Amino acid sequence: MTVAAQMLETFPADLGGIDRQKLLACIEACVECGQACTACADADLSEETVAHLRTCIRSCLDCADVCEATGRVLSRRTAYDATVTRAVLEACATTCRACGDECERHAQMHEHCRICAEVCRRCEQACRDLLGSLG
Amino acid sequence: MTVAAQMLETFPADLGGIDRQKLLACIEACVECGQACTACADADLSEETVAHLRTCIRSCLDCADVCEATGRVLSRRTAYDATVTRAVLEACATTCRACGDECERHAQMHEHCRICAEVCRRCEQACRDLLGSLG
Amino acid sequence: MTVAAQMLETFPADLGGIDRQKLLACIEACVECGQACTACADADLSEETVAHLRTCIRSCLDCADVCEATGRVLSRRTAYDATVTRAVLEACATTCRACGDECERHAQMHEHCRICAEVCRRCEQACRDLLGSLG
Amino acid sequence: MTVAAQMLETFPADLGGIDRQKLLACIEACVECGQACTACADADLSEETVAHLRTCIRSCLDCADVCEATGRVLSRRTAYDATVTRAVLEACATTCRACGDECERHAQMHEHCRICAEVCRRCEQACRDLLGSLG
Repeated sequence: MTVAAQMLETFPADLGGIDRQKLLACIEACVECGQACTACADADLSEETVAHLRTCIRSCLDCADVCEATGRVLSRRTAYDATVTRAVLEACATTCRACGDECERHAQMHEHCRICAEVCRRCEQACRDLLGSLG
Repeated sequence: MTVAAQMLETFPADLGGIDRQKLLACIEACVECGQACTACADADLSEETVAHLRTCIRSCLDCADVCEATGRVLSRRTAYDATVTRAVLEACATTCRACGDECERHAQMHEHCRICAEVCRRCEQACRDLLGSLG
Repeated sequence: MTVAAQMLETFPADLGGIDRQKLLACIEACVECGQACTACADADLSEETVAHLRTCIRSCLDCADVCEATGRVLSRRTAYDATVTRAVLEACATTCRACGDECERHAQMHEHCRICAEVCRRCEQACRDLLGSLG
Repeated sequence: MTVAAQMLETFPADLGGIDRQKLLACIEACVECGQACTACADADLSEETVAHLRTCIRSCLDCADVCEATGRVLSRRTAYDATVTRAVLEACATTCRACGDECERHAQMHEHCRICAEVCRRCEQACRDLLGSLG
Protein backbone atom coordinates (compact mmCIF):
# COMPACT_ATOMS: atom_id res chain seq x y z
CA MET A 1 0.00 0.00 0.00
CA THR A 2 1.39 3.43 -0.94
CA VAL A 3 1.75 6.18 1.66
CA ALA A 4 -1.10 8.11 -0.02
CA ALA A 5 -3.32 5.03 0.38
CA GLN A 6 -2.34 4.67 4.03
CA MET A 7 -3.09 8.32 4.72
CA LEU A 8 -6.54 7.93 3.16
CA GLU A 9 -7.10 4.72 5.14
CA THR A 10 -6.31 6.43 8.45
CA PHE A 11 -8.34 9.61 7.89
CA PRO A 12 -10.33 9.86 11.13
CA ALA A 13 -13.68 11.01 9.73
CA ASP A 14 -16.08 10.11 6.97
CA LEU A 15 -14.80 10.53 3.40
CA GLY A 16 -18.16 11.99 2.40
CA GLY A 17 -19.37 9.32 -0.01
CA ILE A 18 -16.51 9.86 -2.47
CA ASP A 19 -15.25 6.83 -4.46
CA ARG A 20 -12.14 5.93 -2.48
CA GLN A 21 -10.35 4.10 -5.29
CA LYS A 22 -10.91 6.88 -7.82
CA LEU A 23 -9.87 9.48 -5.27
CA LEU A 24 -6.66 7.65 -4.46
CA ALA A 25 -5.88 7.08 -8.14
CA CYS A 26 -6.39 10.79 -8.81
CA ILE A 27 -4.21 11.96 -5.89
CA GLU A 28 -1.41 9.66 -7.04
CA ALA A 29 -1.76 10.70 -10.67
CA CYS A 30 -1.60 14.41 -9.75
CA VAL A 31 1.51 13.96 -7.60
CA GLU A 32 3.21 11.89 -10.30
CA CYS A 33 2.25 14.31 -13.06
CA GLY A 34 3.43 17.33 -11.06
CA GLN A 35 6.90 15.81 -10.70
CA ALA A 36 7.07 14.57 -14.30
CA CYS A 37 6.11 17.98 -15.71
CA THR A 38 8.73 19.77 -13.59
CA ALA A 39 11.33 17.30 -14.87
CA CYS A 40 10.13 17.51 -18.50
CA ALA A 41 10.26 21.32 -18.55
CA ASP A 42 13.82 21.05 -17.26
CA ALA A 43 14.80 18.33 -19.75
CA ASP A 44 13.42 20.51 -22.58
CA LEU A 45 15.61 23.32 -21.29
CA SER A 46 18.71 21.13 -21.68
CA GLU A 47 17.88 20.11 -25.26
CA GLU A 48 19.89 21.69 -28.07
CA THR A 49 16.58 22.54 -29.71
CA VAL A 50 15.31 24.48 -26.70
CA ALA A 51 14.08 27.30 -28.96
CA HIS A 52 11.57 24.86 -30.49
CA LEU A 53 10.39 23.70 -27.10
CA ARG A 54 9.13 26.99 -25.66
CA THR A 55 5.47 25.97 -25.77
CA CYS A 56 6.32 22.62 -24.25
CA ILE A 57 8.25 24.20 -21.36
CA ARG A 58 5.49 26.68 -20.60
CA SER A 59 2.84 24.00 -20.81
CA CYS A 60 4.77 21.70 -18.47
CA LEU A 61 5.35 24.48 -15.93
CA ASP A 62 1.63 25.26 -15.83
CA CYS A 63 0.74 21.59 -15.59
CA ALA A 64 3.15 21.05 -12.69
CA ASP A 65 1.56 23.92 -10.75
CA VAL A 66 -2.03 22.90 -11.42
CA CYS A 67 -1.41 19.19 -10.72
CA GLU A 68 0.31 19.93 -7.43
CA ALA A 69 -2.46 22.26 -6.29
CA THR A 70 -5.05 19.66 -7.30
CA GLY A 71 -3.18 16.89 -5.48
CA ARG A 72 -3.22 19.03 -2.34
CA VAL A 73 -6.91 19.92 -2.56
CA LEU A 74 -7.80 16.23 -3.09
CA SER A 75 -5.56 15.14 -0.20
CA ARG A 76 -7.72 17.22 2.16
CA ARG A 77 -10.89 15.47 3.27
CA THR A 78 -12.05 17.75 6.12
CA ALA A 79 -15.22 19.72 5.29
CA TYR A 80 -15.42 18.42 1.72
CA ASP A 81 -16.75 20.92 -0.82
CA ALA A 82 -17.99 19.28 -4.03
CA THR A 83 -18.21 22.57 -5.97
CA VAL A 84 -14.57 23.47 -5.34
CA THR A 85 -13.43 19.89 -6.00
CA ARG A 86 -15.26 19.82 -9.32
CA ALA A 87 -13.85 23.17 -10.49
CA VAL A 88 -10.31 22.20 -9.56
CA LEU A 89 -10.63 18.80 -11.27
CA GLU A 90 -11.97 20.44 -14.44
CA ALA A 91 -9.01 22.84 -14.49
CA CYS A 92 -6.57 19.98 -13.92
CA ALA A 93 -8.08 17.81 -16.66
CA THR A 94 -7.96 20.76 -19.09
CA THR A 95 -4.35 21.59 -18.23
CA CYS A 96 -3.25 17.93 -18.49
CA ARG A 97 -4.99 17.64 -21.85
CA ALA A 98 -3.14 20.69 -23.22
CA CYS A 99 0.21 19.51 -21.84
CA GLY A 100 -0.32 15.94 -23.04
CA ASP A 101 -1.12 17.22 -26.55
CA GLU A 102 1.97 19.43 -26.60
CA CYS A 103 4.35 16.79 -25.21
CA GLU A 104 2.99 14.25 -27.68
CA ARG A 105 4.16 16.50 -30.53
CA HIS A 106 7.74 15.93 -29.37
CA ALA A 107 7.36 12.30 -28.28
CA GLN A 108 9.27 10.85 -31.22
CA MET A 109 12.17 13.24 -30.76
CA HIS A 110 12.37 13.30 -26.99
CA GLU A 111 11.79 10.30 -24.79
CA HIS A 112 11.06 12.54 -21.76
CA CYS A 113 8.22 14.13 -23.73
CA ARG A 114 6.83 10.70 -24.61
CA ILE A 115 6.80 9.67 -20.96
CA CYS A 116 5.41 13.02 -19.83
CA ALA A 117 2.62 12.86 -22.43
CA GLU A 118 1.58 9.45 -21.11
CA VAL A 119 1.61 10.67 -17.52
CA CYS A 120 -0.52 13.69 -18.51
CA ARG A 121 -3.03 11.41 -20.27
CA ARG A 122 -3.28 9.20 -17.18
CA CYS A 123 -3.76 12.22 -14.93
CA GLU A 124 -6.39 13.73 -17.22
CA GLN A 125 -8.24 10.41 -17.22
CA ALA A 126 -7.99 10.07 -13.42
CA CYS A 127 -9.46 13.57 -13.02
CA ARG A 128 -12.32 12.74 -15.41
CA ASP A 129 -12.99 9.41 -13.68
CA LEU A 130 -13.21 11.11 -10.32
CA LEU A 131 -15.36 13.90 -11.75
CA GLY A 132 -17.72 11.31 -13.23
CA SER A 133 -18.12 9.63 -9.86
CA LEU A 134 -18.93 12.82 -7.93
CA GLY A 135 -22.55 12.72 -9.07
CA MET B 1 4.63 50.76 -10.45
CA THR B 2 4.64 47.38 -8.69
CA VAL B 3 7.20 44.71 -9.57
CA ALA B 4 4.45 42.61 -11.19
CA ALA B 5 3.58 45.60 -13.42
CA GLN B 6 7.23 46.10 -14.33
CA MET B 7 7.62 42.44 -15.23
CA LEU B 8 4.58 42.63 -17.49
CA GLU B 9 5.90 45.87 -19.02
CA THR B 10 9.26 44.27 -19.89
CA PHE B 11 7.91 41.01 -21.31
CA PRO B 12 9.79 40.73 -24.62
CA ALA B 13 6.99 39.40 -26.83
CA ASP B 14 3.39 40.12 -27.61
CA LEU B 15 0.91 39.68 -24.74
CA GLY B 16 -1.53 38.01 -27.13
CA GLY B 17 -4.32 40.56 -27.09
CA ILE B 18 -5.08 40.12 -23.41
CA ASP B 19 -6.34 43.13 -21.42
CA ARG B 20 -3.12 44.24 -19.69
CA GLN B 21 -4.81 46.07 -16.81
CA LYS B 22 -7.18 43.21 -15.99
CA LEU B 23 -4.33 40.71 -16.27
CA LEU B 24 -2.14 42.70 -13.89
CA ALA B 25 -4.99 43.21 -11.43
CA CYS B 26 -5.67 39.49 -11.46
CA ILE B 27 -2.02 38.48 -10.96
CA GLU B 28 -1.74 40.87 -8.01
CA ALA B 29 -5.06 39.72 -6.52
CA CYS B 30 -4.02 36.05 -6.74
CA VAL B 31 -0.66 36.68 -5.08
CA GLU B 32 -2.27 38.78 -2.33
CA CYS B 33 -5.04 36.24 -1.76
CA GLY B 34 -2.60 33.33 -1.61
CA GLN B 35 -0.66 35.00 1.19
CA ALA B 36 -3.78 36.16 3.07
CA CYS B 37 -5.33 32.68 2.99
CA THR B 38 -2.12 31.06 4.30
CA ALA B 39 -2.10 33.61 7.13
CA CYS B 40 -5.84 33.25 7.85
CA ALA B 41 -5.65 29.45 8.09
CA ASP B 42 -2.81 29.92 10.57
CA ALA B 43 -4.64 32.61 12.57
CA ASP B 44 -7.67 30.29 12.79
CA LEU B 45 -5.36 27.62 14.15
CA SER B 46 -4.29 29.93 16.98
CA GLU B 47 -7.87 30.82 17.97
CA GLU B 48 -9.28 29.25 21.14
CA THR B 49 -12.27 28.21 19.08
CA VAL B 50 -10.19 26.31 16.55
CA ALA B 51 -12.63 23.37 16.63
CA HIS B 52 -15.29 25.65 15.12
CA LEU B 53 -12.96 26.85 12.43
CA ARG B 54 -12.16 23.54 10.71
CA THR B 55 -14.07 24.40 7.54
CA CYS B 56 -12.48 27.84 7.44
CA ILE B 57 -8.95 26.41 7.78
CA ARG B 58 -9.52 23.83 5.06
CA SER B 59 -11.11 26.38 2.78
CA CYS B 60 -8.21 28.84 3.27
CA LEU B 61 -5.60 26.14 2.61
CA ASP B 62 -7.29 25.20 -0.67
CA CYS B 63 -7.67 28.84 -1.66
CA ALA B 64 -3.99 29.55 -0.98
CA ASP B 65 -2.94 26.66 -3.23
CA VAL B 66 -5.32 27.51 -6.07
CA CYS B 67 -4.57 31.26 -5.98
CA GLU B 68 -0.80 30.68 -6.05
CA ALA B 69 -1.07 28.26 -8.96
CA THR B 70 -3.33 30.72 -10.80
CA GLY B 71 -0.95 33.61 -10.12
CA ARG B 72 1.88 31.56 -11.62
CA VAL B 73 -0.08 30.50 -14.71
CA LEU B 74 -1.11 34.12 -15.33
CA SER B 75 2.44 35.39 -14.81
CA ARG B 76 3.55 33.28 -17.78
CA ARG B 77 2.89 34.91 -21.16
CA THR B 78 4.91 32.68 -23.48
CA ALA B 79 2.75 30.53 -25.80
CA TYR B 80 -0.52 31.73 -24.28
CA ASP B 81 -3.28 29.11 -24.14
CA ALA B 82 -6.75 30.60 -23.68
CA THR B 83 -8.40 27.27 -22.86
CA VAL B 84 -6.06 26.55 -19.96
CA THR B 85 -6.23 30.15 -18.74
CA ARG B 86 -10.02 30.04 -18.74
CA ALA B 87 -10.22 26.73 -16.85
CA VAL B 88 -7.73 27.89 -14.22
CA LEU B 89 -9.52 31.23 -13.76
CA GLU B 90 -12.88 29.44 -13.35
CA ALA B 91 -11.38 27.19 -10.67
CA CYS B 92 -9.82 30.15 -8.90
CA ALA B 93 -13.05 32.19 -8.93
CA THR B 94 -15.00 29.19 -7.57
CA THR B 95 -12.45 28.54 -4.81
CA CYS B 96 -12.30 32.23 -3.82
CA ARG B 97 -16.10 32.36 -3.73
CA ALA B 98 -16.26 29.37 -1.37
CA CYS B 99 -13.48 30.72 0.85
CA GLY B 100 -14.95 34.24 0.90
CA ASP B 101 -18.34 32.83 1.94
CA GLU B 102 -16.78 30.75 4.71
CA CYS B 103 -14.55 33.52 6.06
CA GLU B 104 -17.48 35.95 6.01
CA ARG B 105 -19.29 33.68 8.48
CA HIS B 106 -16.56 34.43 11.01
CA ALA B 107 -15.97 38.07 10.05
CA GLN B 108 -17.65 39.52 13.12
CA MET B 109 -15.76 37.28 15.49
CA HIS B 110 -12.36 37.33 13.84
CA GLU B 111 -10.84 40.36 12.18
CA HIS B 112 -8.46 38.17 10.13
CA CYS B 113 -11.48 36.39 8.64
CA ARG B 114 -13.08 39.73 7.78
CA ILE B 115 -9.95 40.87 5.95
CA CYS B 116 -9.48 37.49 4.26
CA ALA B 117 -13.12 37.45 3.08
CA GLU B 118 -12.63 40.85 1.44
CA VAL B 119 -9.42 39.73 -0.25
CA CYS B 120 -11.17 36.59 -1.55
CA ARG B 121 -14.03 38.72 -2.94
CA ARG B 122 -11.55 40.98 -4.71
CA CYS B 123 -9.69 38.01 -6.15
CA GLU B 124 -12.90 36.32 -7.31
CA GLN B 125 -13.92 39.56 -9.01
CA ALA B 126 -10.51 40.02 -10.64
CA CYS B 127 -10.73 36.47 -12.03
CA ARG B 128 -14.23 37.10 -13.39
CA ASP B 129 -13.19 40.45 -14.90
CA LEU B 130 -10.28 38.81 -16.67
CA LEU B 131 -12.47 35.89 -17.79
CA GLY B 132 -15.01 38.37 -19.18
CA SER B 133 -12.32 40.09 -21.22
CA LEU B 134 -10.90 36.91 -22.77
CA GLY B 135 -13.64 36.85 -25.41
CA MET C 1 10.76 1.82 -12.84
CA THR C 2 8.90 4.82 -11.42
CA VAL C 3 8.12 7.85 -13.55
CA ALA C 4 10.66 9.91 -11.57
CA ALA C 5 13.31 7.29 -12.42
CA GLN C 6 12.34 7.35 -16.09
CA MET C 7 12.53 11.13 -16.19
CA LEU C 8 16.03 11.03 -14.69
CA GLU C 9 17.02 8.29 -17.13
CA THR C 10 15.94 10.35 -20.13
CA PHE C 11 17.49 13.67 -19.06
CA PRO C 12 19.39 14.73 -22.20
CA ALA C 13 22.53 16.16 -20.60
CA ASP C 14 25.08 15.21 -17.99
CA LEU C 15 23.78 14.86 -14.42
CA GLY C 16 26.89 16.66 -13.15
CA GLY C 17 28.51 13.86 -11.19
CA ILE C 18 25.66 13.55 -8.69
CA ASP C 19 24.89 10.10 -7.23
CA ARG C 20 21.93 9.05 -9.36
CA GLN C 21 20.46 6.56 -6.89
CA LYS C 22 20.64 8.97 -3.95
CA LEU C 23 19.19 11.76 -6.07
CA LEU C 24 16.27 9.61 -7.19
CA ALA C 25 15.61 8.37 -3.66
CA CYS C 26 15.58 11.96 -2.41
CA ILE C 27 13.22 13.23 -5.14
CA GLU C 28 10.80 10.39 -4.41
CA ALA C 29 11.04 10.90 -0.65
CA CYS C 30 10.34 14.63 -0.99
CA VAL C 31 7.30 14.06 -3.20
CA GLU C 32 5.95 11.35 -0.89
CA CYS C 33 6.57 13.44 2.23
CA GLY C 34 4.92 16.52 0.72
CA GLN C 35 1.72 14.57 0.08
CA ALA C 36 1.77 12.77 3.45
CA CYS C 37 2.24 16.04 5.37
CA THR C 38 -0.64 17.72 3.53
CA ALA C 39 -2.84 14.73 4.38
CA CYS C 40 -1.64 14.54 8.00
CA ALA C 41 -2.34 18.24 8.65
CA ASP C 42 -5.84 17.63 7.30
CA ALA C 43 -6.38 14.44 9.32
CA ASP C 44 -5.30 16.35 12.47
CA LEU C 45 -7.89 18.96 11.60
CA SER C 46 -10.63 16.30 11.62
CA GLU C 47 -9.61 14.87 15.00
CA GLU C 48 -11.81 15.69 18.00
CA THR C 49 -8.65 16.76 19.79
CA VAL C 50 -7.71 19.29 17.13
CA ALA C 51 -6.88 21.88 19.81
CA HIS C 52 -4.01 19.66 20.98
CA LEU C 53 -2.72 19.20 17.46
CA ARG C 54 -1.98 22.84 16.57
CA THR C 55 1.79 22.38 16.57
CA CYS C 56 1.43 19.21 14.52
CA ILE C 57 -0.74 20.92 11.90
CA ARG C 58 1.60 23.86 11.56
CA SER C 59 4.63 21.61 11.39
CA CYS C 60 3.03 19.43 8.69
CA LEU C 61 2.01 22.45 6.60
CA ASP C 62 5.58 23.79 6.67
CA CYS C 63 7.00 20.37 5.88
CA ALA C 64 4.66 19.94 2.90
CA ASP C 65 5.78 23.29 1.45
CA VAL C 66 9.50 22.72 1.99
CA CYS C 67 9.43 19.12 0.72
CA GLU C 68 7.57 20.09 -2.45
CA ALA C 69 9.95 22.97 -3.17
CA THR C 70 12.92 20.65 -2.55
CA GLY C 71 11.46 17.95 -4.79
CA ARG C 72 11.14 20.52 -7.57
CA VAL C 73 14.66 21.91 -7.16
CA LEU C 74 16.09 18.37 -7.21
CA SER C 75 14.00 17.42 -10.26
CA ARG C 76 15.79 20.14 -12.24
CA ARG C 77 19.21 19.08 -13.57
CA THR C 78 19.97 21.90 -16.01
CA ALA C 79 22.81 24.20 -14.85
CA TYR C 80 23.26 22.40 -11.55
CA ASP C 81 24.23 24.66 -8.62
CA ALA C 82 25.71 22.73 -5.69
CA THR C 83 25.46 25.68 -3.27
CA VAL C 84 21.74 26.10 -3.78
CA THR C 85 21.16 22.34 -3.71
CA ARG C 86 23.02 22.04 -0.43
CA ALA C 87 21.13 24.91 1.24
CA VAL C 88 17.76 23.58 0.14
CA LEU C 89 18.61 20.04 1.29
CA GLU C 90 19.72 21.36 4.70
CA ALA C 91 16.44 23.24 5.09
CA CYS C 92 14.45 20.18 4.05
CA ALA C 93 16.29 17.86 6.45
CA THR C 94 15.76 20.34 9.30
CA THR C 95 12.06 20.74 8.54
CA CYS C 96 11.53 16.97 8.22
CA ARG C 97 13.36 16.43 11.51
CA ALA C 98 11.07 18.91 13.31
CA CYS C 99 7.92 17.47 11.73
CA GLY C 100 8.98 13.86 12.37
CA ASP C 101 9.61 14.70 16.04
CA GLU C 102 6.25 16.39 16.40
CA CYS C 103 4.26 13.67 14.60
CA GLU C 104 6.01 11.01 16.66
CA ARG C 105 4.56 12.58 19.82
CA HIS C 106 1.09 11.67 18.52
CA ALA C 107 2.01 8.35 16.90
CA GLN C 108 0.37 6.19 19.55
CA MET C 109 -2.86 8.16 19.44
CA HIS C 110 -3.12 8.77 15.71
CA GLU C 111 -2.13 6.28 13.07
CA HIS C 112 -1.78 9.04 10.45
CA CYS C 113 0.83 10.72 12.67
CA ARG C 114 2.71 7.43 13.04
CA ILE C 115 2.85 7.00 9.26
CA CYS C 116 3.72 10.66 8.68
CA ALA C 117 6.52 10.53 11.26
CA GLU C 118 8.07 7.55 9.44
CA VAL C 119 7.81 9.29 6.08
CA CYS C 120 9.47 12.41 7.54
CA ARG C 121 12.31 10.28 8.96
CA ARG C 122 12.85 8.64 5.57
CA CYS C 123 12.86 12.01 3.82
CA GLU C 124 15.25 13.54 6.34
CA GLN C 125 17.58 10.56 5.83
CA ALA C 126 17.32 10.77 2.05
CA CYS C 127 18.26 14.48 2.22
CA ARG C 128 21.24 13.73 4.47
CA ASP C 129 22.38 10.84 2.26
CA LEU C 130 22.29 13.07 -0.79
CA LEU C 131 24.01 15.89 1.08
CA GLY C 132 26.75 13.47 2.16
CA SER C 133 27.36 12.41 -1.43
CA LEU C 134 27.65 15.97 -2.81
CA GLY C 135 31.25 16.21 -1.60
CA MET D 1 -1.29 49.09 5.26
CA THR D 2 -0.80 46.05 3.00
CA VAL D 3 -2.92 42.94 3.43
CA ALA D 4 0.13 41.05 4.74
CA ALA D 5 0.56 43.76 7.40
CA GLN D 6 -3.11 43.55 8.35
CA MET D 7 -2.94 39.77 8.66
CA LEU D 8 0.07 40.07 10.96
CA GLU D 9 -1.69 42.80 12.97
CA THR D 10 -4.76 40.61 13.55
CA PHE D 11 -2.93 37.40 14.44
CA PRO D 12 -4.72 36.34 17.65
CA ALA D 13 -1.72 35.13 19.66
CA ASP D 14 1.75 36.24 20.60
CA LEU D 15 4.22 36.61 17.71
CA GLY D 16 6.93 35.02 19.89
CA GLY D 17 9.32 37.93 20.25
CA ILE D 18 10.08 38.16 16.54
CA ASP D 19 10.84 41.61 15.05
CA ARG D 20 7.52 42.47 13.46
CA GLN D 21 8.84 44.95 10.91
CA LYS D 22 11.60 42.64 9.71
CA LEU D 23 9.16 39.72 9.56
CA LEU D 24 6.67 41.70 7.49
CA ALA D 25 9.39 43.01 5.18
CA CYS D 26 10.63 39.46 4.63
CA ILE D 27 7.15 38.01 3.93
CA GLU D 28 6.50 40.76 1.39
CA ALA D 29 9.92 40.36 -0.22
CA CYS D 30 9.44 36.59 -0.57
CA VAL D 31 6.01 36.95 -2.16
CA GLU D 32 7.26 39.66 -4.53
CA CYS D 33 10.36 37.69 -5.46
CA GLY D 34 8.38 34.50 -6.07
CA GLN D 35 6.18 36.29 -8.62
CA ALA D 36 9.07 38.17 -10.25
CA CYS D 37 11.12 34.99 -10.69
CA THR D 38 8.19 33.13 -12.27
CA ALA D 39 7.73 36.06 -14.68
CA CYS D 40 11.48 36.38 -15.41
CA ALA D 41 11.85 32.68 -16.23
CA ASP D 42 8.96 33.09 -18.63
CA ALA D 43 10.33 36.30 -20.17
CA ASP D 44 13.68 34.52 -20.72
CA LEU D 45 11.77 31.78 -22.49
CA SER D 46 10.35 34.33 -24.95
CA GLU D 47 13.73 35.88 -25.74
CA GLU D 48 15.33 35.04 -29.09
CA THR D 49 18.47 34.16 -27.18
CA VAL D 50 16.71 31.60 -25.00
CA ALA D 51 19.57 29.12 -25.53
CA HIS D 52 21.89 31.51 -23.66
CA LEU D 53 19.42 31.91 -20.82
CA ARG D 54 19.15 28.30 -19.64
CA THR D 55 20.96 28.93 -16.36
CA CYS D 56 18.86 32.03 -15.76
CA ILE D 57 15.59 30.16 -16.34
CA ARG D 58 16.57 27.30 -14.06
CA SER D 59 17.78 29.69 -11.40
CA CYS D 60 14.55 31.72 -11.53
CA LEU D 61 12.37 28.59 -11.32
CA ASP D 62 14.22 27.43 -8.21
CA CYS D 63 14.07 30.87 -6.68
CA ALA D 64 10.31 31.13 -7.27
CA ASP D 65 9.74 27.80 -5.51
CA VAL D 66 11.99 28.55 -2.55
CA CYS D 67 10.68 32.11 -2.07
CA GLU D 68 7.06 30.97 -2.12
CA ALA D 69 7.71 28.19 0.37
CA THR D 70 9.59 30.65 2.60
CA GLY D 71 6.80 33.22 2.36
CA ARG D 72 4.34 30.57 3.50
CA VAL D 73 6.46 29.34 6.40
CA LEU D 74 6.96 32.94 7.59
CA SER D 75 3.25 33.72 7.22
CA ARG D 76 2.50 31.04 9.83
CA ARG D 77 2.95 32.22 13.40
CA THR D 78 1.30 29.36 15.35
CA ALA D 79 3.79 27.24 17.31
CA TYR D 80 6.82 29.14 16.04
CA ASP D 81 9.95 27.00 15.52
CA ALA D 82 13.14 29.07 15.35
CA THR D 83 15.27 26.18 14.04
CA VAL D 84 13.03 25.56 11.04
CA THR D 85 12.65 29.30 10.39
CA ARG D 86 16.42 29.78 10.41
CA ALA D 87 17.07 26.87 8.04
CA VAL D 88 14.41 28.02 5.60
CA LEU D 89 15.68 31.62 5.67
CA GLU D 90 19.26 30.44 5.04
CA ALA D 91 18.08 28.42 2.02
CA CYS D 92 16.08 31.37 0.71
CA ALA D 93 18.97 33.83 1.11
CA THR D 94 21.31 31.40 -0.69
CA THR D 95 18.86 30.81 -3.54
CA CYS D 96 18.16 34.55 -3.95
CA ARG D 97 21.91 35.26 -3.98
CA ALA D 98 22.46 32.73 -6.78
CA CYS D 99 19.50 33.98 -8.80
CA GLY D 100 20.41 37.64 -8.27
CA ASP D 101 23.96 36.93 -9.47
CA GLU D 102 22.71 35.11 -12.56
CA CYS D 103 20.06 37.69 -13.48
CA GLU D 104 22.61 40.48 -13.03
CA ARG D 105 24.71 38.91 -15.78
CA HIS D 106 21.87 39.64 -18.21
CA ALA D 107 20.74 42.95 -16.72
CA GLN D 108 22.17 45.11 -19.50
CA MET D 109 20.59 42.98 -22.20
CA HIS D 110 17.24 42.26 -20.60
CA GLU D 111 15.31 44.74 -18.51
CA HIS D 112 13.29 41.92 -16.85
CA CYS D 113 16.58 40.42 -15.64
CA ARG D 114 17.67 43.79 -14.23
CA ILE D 115 14.42 44.14 -12.29
CA CYS D 116 14.49 40.51 -11.16
CA ALA D 117 18.09 40.84 -9.96
CA GLU D 118 17.13 43.83 -7.82
CA VAL D 119 14.14 42.00 -6.36
CA CYS D 120 16.36 38.99 -5.54
CA ARG D 121 18.89 41.29 -3.80
CA ARG D 122 16.12 42.85 -1.72
CA CYS D 123 14.74 39.44 -0.78
CA GLU D 124 18.17 38.10 0.13
CA GLN D 125 18.73 41.15 2.33
CA ALA D 126 15.30 40.83 3.95
CA CYS D 127 16.06 37.18 4.79
CA ARG D 128 19.45 38.12 6.28
CA ASP D 129 17.95 41.00 8.26
CA LEU D 130 15.33 38.69 9.73
CA LEU D 131 17.93 36.00 10.40
CA GLY D 132 20.09 38.56 12.20
CA SER D 133 17.21 39.55 14.45
CA LEU D 134 16.28 35.99 15.47
CA GLY D 135 19.05 35.94 18.08
